[in-house]
Amino acid sequence: MITLDALNTATPEHFTATLSGVFEHAPWVAAAIAPARPFATVTALHEAMFATVLAAPPDQVTTFLRGHPELAGSAALSGTLTRESTAEQASLNLDRGAEDIAALNTAYAARFGFPFITCVRRHTRASLLSEFRRRVTLDPATEHATALQEIFYITRLRLAVLVEGPGMPAVNGSLTTHVLDTSIGRPGKGILVELREAGIPTLLASGRTNADGRTVAPLLHGAPLRIGQYELLFHVGAYFAGQATERPAFLDIVPVHFGISEPETHYHVPLLVSPGAYSTYRGS
Amino acid sequence: MITLDALNTATPEHFTATLSGVFEHAPWVAAAIAPARPFATVTALHEAMFATVLAAPPDQVTTFLRGHPELAGSAALSGTLTRESTAEQASLNLDRGAEDIAALNTAYAARFGFPFITCVRRHTRASLLSEFRRRVTLDPATEHATALQEIFYITRLRLAVLVEGPGMPAVNGSLTTHVLDTSIGRPGKGILVELREAGIPTLLASGRTNADGRTVAPLLHGAPLRIGQYELLFHVGAYFAGQATERPAFLDIVPVHFGISEPETHYHVPLLVSPGAYSTYRGS
Amino acid sequence: MITLDALNTATPEHFTATLSGVFEHAPWVAAAIAPARPFATVTALHEAMFATVLAAPPDQVTTFLRGHPELAGSAALSGTLTRESTAEQASLNLDRGAEDIAALNTAYAARFGFPFITCVRRHTRASLLSEFRRRVTLDPATEHATALQEIFYITRLRLAVLVEGPGMPAVNGSLTTHVLDTSIGRPGKGILVELREAGIPTLLASGRTNADGRTVAPLLHGAPLRIGQYELLFHVGAYFAGQATERPAFLDIVPVHFGISEPETHYHVPLLVSPGAYSTYRGS
Amino acid sequence: MITLDALNTATPEHFTATLSGVFEHAPWVAAAIAPARPFATVTALHEAMFATVLAAPPDQVTTFLRGHPELAGSAALSGTLTRESTAEQASLNLDRGAEDIAALNTAYAARFGFPFITCVRRHTRASLLSEFRRRVTLDPATEHATALQEIFYITRLRLAVLVEGPGMPAVNGSLTTHVLDTSIGRPGKGILVELREAGIPTLLASGRTNADGRTVAPLLHGAPLRIGQYELLFHVGAYFAGQATERPAFLDIVPVHFGISEPETHYHVPLLVSPGAYSTYRGS
Repeated sequence: MITLDALNTATPEHFTATLSGVFEHAPWVAAAIAPARPFATVTALHEAMFATVLAAPPDQVTTFLRGHPELAGSAALSGTLTRESTAEQASLNLDRGAEDIAALNTAYAARFGFPFITCVRRHTRASLLSEFRRRVTLDPATEHATALQEIFYITRLRLAVLVEGPGMPAVNGSLTTHVLDTSIGRPGKGILVELREAGIPTLLASGRTNADGRTVAPLLHGAPLRIGQYELLFHVGAYFAGQATERPAFLDIVPVHFGISEPETHYHVPLLVSPGAYSTYRGS
Repeated sequence: MITLDALNTATPEHFTATLSGVFEHAPWVAAAIAPARPFATVTALHEAMFATVLAAPPDQVTTFLRGHPELAGSAALSGTLTRESTAEQASLNLDRGAEDIAALNTAYAARFGFPFITCVRRHTRASLLSEFRRRVTLDPATEHATALQEIFYITRLRLAVLVEGPGMPAVNGSLTTHVLDTSIGRPGKGILVELREAGIPTLLASGRTNADGRTVAPLLHGAPLRIGQYELLFHVGAYFAGQATERPAFLDIVPVHFGISEPETHYHVPLLVSPGAYSTYRGS
Repeated sequence: MITLDALNTATPEHFTATLSGVFEHAPWVAAAIAPARPFATVTALHEAMFATVLAAPPDQVTTFLRGHPELAGSAALSGTLTRESTAEQASLNLDRGAEDIAALNTAYAARFGFPFITCVRRHTRASLLSEFRRRVTLDPATEHATALQEIFYITRLRLAVLVEGPGMPAVNGSLTTHVLDTSIGRPGKGILVELREAGIPTLLASGRTNADGRTVAPLLHGAPLRIGQYELLFHVGAYFAGQATERPAFLDIVPVHFGISEPETHYHVPLLVSPGAYSTYRGS
Repeated sequence: MITLDALNTATPEHFTATLSGVFEHAPWVAAAIAPARPFATVTALHEAMFATVLAAPPDQVTTFLRGHPELAGSAALSGTLTRESTAEQASLNLDRGAEDIAALNTAYAARFGFPFITCVRRHTRASLLSEFRRRVTLDPATEHATALQEIFYITRLRLAVLVEGPGMPAVNGSLTTHVLDTSIGRPGKGILVELREAGIPTLLASGRTNADGRTVAPLLHGAPLRIGQYELLFHVGAYFAGQATERPAFLDIVPVHFGISEPETHYHVPLLVSPGAYSTYRGS
């Protein structure tokens, strides 16, 4: 990473070169704002860059949009994506169902004249495809604005890992849980908690609650959350079975299904549980 | 009580005489609908009577409104109320704070030209006074309509205790509760439950939950509920103390405050409780 | 069905013949109690028959136990089961995994000297197999008593569908639900509710909640519940999406997993739900 | 305050003089442990002092117990209490009902031969009197041990405000709350929360929830909690009335009654609320 201070005092050439990968194939964005330095915050730097795009002539914006790679497209398959795009696309297994994506790419390009652009780090595979199907039906003006909003998210994330300094943009979300044993009014200790994307067996995280009823670390953190549907599994049957009192065999593994729609925020999904009842909610 | 059948086949004079107390000092209402017999339901009979009032000339309606007694007014104090009004006003201890009521009566009559009319059986003392204070500020057209709506409630209740037959109007509400011990997933048995109007020590009802977690009879039933604020007290501390397992001394008497605003409906206010937590809600 | 009255007044031969299928290949049970007639209730009749088995000489009891068919055994495969046993075994798809069952049958017979007897109508396939694996490890005295207890359940059920009269044994369980929308304090109306055995896609029941938040009929009723793990799915996302107010996309399909361990009782598993939270419990 | 370091290096005389007020009229306790210095933690210092009392000859312990003032007794009334005892007794309005206390003092002294000793800072007035009435009935051996345990609490508190250093004893408790609006899955903001001792109108604390649904500061903190019964009042009616959607008038001020029995711990008593339901629990 480079510090904001260093960027503020670099030569225009070095400044532009350093930031050239933030906006895809568009070093002119960084070049345009070099004279506006110094920037007080990393957020202000990003906002200045994005405002440059919004203020650019329509032809230049169109060229810029067209400079983005297709999702799981030929550039991805042939390995000619930018380094940033490669890392971003890698996580979603987009090669599975590549035919559907190819068909969507074709339809999208035919309709809008540029490739489908989205901030893949804010999506699960399911929500990305759902979003792709939805956006391909939008009217061109709405979709143009949507594409630019996605570029805002993409570039904000890229900048946040490239530059450090005051006023960092808020790009991370987190997910925590907490188990309370309401039959004794105490935290539920030693309960296995598992997280997975709904319908996908792979665990995203798991942990055992400590004496305060919490997992040692958040279940998700340090990045944007991915929009999608999730399932928490609380293994309370084993917990209650370990207690002295005999309990009715009513609850075993309690599943909680919930949706994440705001990637940059904190989700707290606790469980208040006794042998005969439970509650859950979106907390804070 | 008289049956609807009997009313449908009575002479017009007997029909009118029987119903003469339903609309205060207005036997002309019953007389007007005698030729429209037979009525298929008690509700239809009431609606026909009320429609007669709505269709009457303005002067006659005004005279009718003026024929109602003041709340806790001179007629009440001198014992010259109709039998129906006497019974209705008796239950609210309106002689307490009679000075305030007298001032409201004066202000109301000066503003609207007829006495304050309300269906006292649908109110607690607190809500009646609150309603009186609110209505004295309304514009005359709104208040005229409100007074007629109250006459609708009053006469519907009077008819419901006078005539029996098919299609009785729904004039009764009820309040029930239920205690579930979520620490064992079973009804909470033997728990004392008390009901009172909020802020008033007198108990309106009390009972102990049975093996199904319910009181033997509804806490309130057989009449309209009275609009107001209520408090249920669930004596769960004694219940948990009687169990083998040692429990944290967190809950003793659980108070639940709630408002009743719909007198002719069913309120179900249960308690889901364990030693460390409880929930309540308006159920059905 | 035959009435208890008719049985009480039948010839001993007719009485014995009518009840000969209740205890497997053991008409002597009915014959023994014919002189003890009349029976005041169907339950008393069953208890008298079962007491006859308990009081029989050990050799006769052993012969009786050995007269039962194996689970999915050669009699089942060759179609020579009694009519009652055929119907009882049919519902669980025991031909799937028949090899495991065959191995358990062999081990069980070698250990105890009679076939594994269980009341299959009180079990899901999963709980039946789990119970088989557990019981094959018990000590002979405990397992002998367990087998007799299962015969009690089997014969009680057989008698309940054969004889009608006062004092019917309680052989049925039921499962109901209820959805309350706590964001408005009203029943949740029009919500799709689905029931399935946990881990098995086939629906056991489904329905839409009515204006009172309940399905028109119980989800399960009219027979013993089957011991096992179940999953209720409440489609609340569609319900909240149909409301005027915009809602956070937090809940979509709410799954509730729970165990049934008491086949002859009532389970009530409601959902109290708002867009940001829900509770469930074993109610009554 | 004095530091533990300073105490560890002081002359024996200065050490003893500094700590002479910790154990009532018993400077011999501090003197006895001066040679055992240095103490690594304040807790170790306190434990050494208390162990000295436990190890003292019975006569000396009895004299020590007798050196304590009566509760609201003649020393209190005549102003001759030690400075520490005066401050401790001041907070509970013990002059109210002084006759009852005088009678208890007499009965207690007659039974046990020393005055009733209790750590008043861990009690409300109600729990102190309840405890007094309970303890006067105990057998002498149990009560002797109870009195010493109370001296443990008293002296630990006195030491904690006198000496600072590593390993401070945990003498403080706290009470926090949190309001979640489950109808939107967000913190309830701007809700007035009031705390009082059950049955006593004076507010102990009040605050309005912030954007995270919490009061700015804990409702209670910085001292031991006082054993007793409490009432939190959540003004949710005004909160829901301020929202765009029309709501049923079911909840207005939600009272939560709960007991505090562990003065040195953290109590978290949140409210999960929607217009038609609420939950509360002892959280962590």
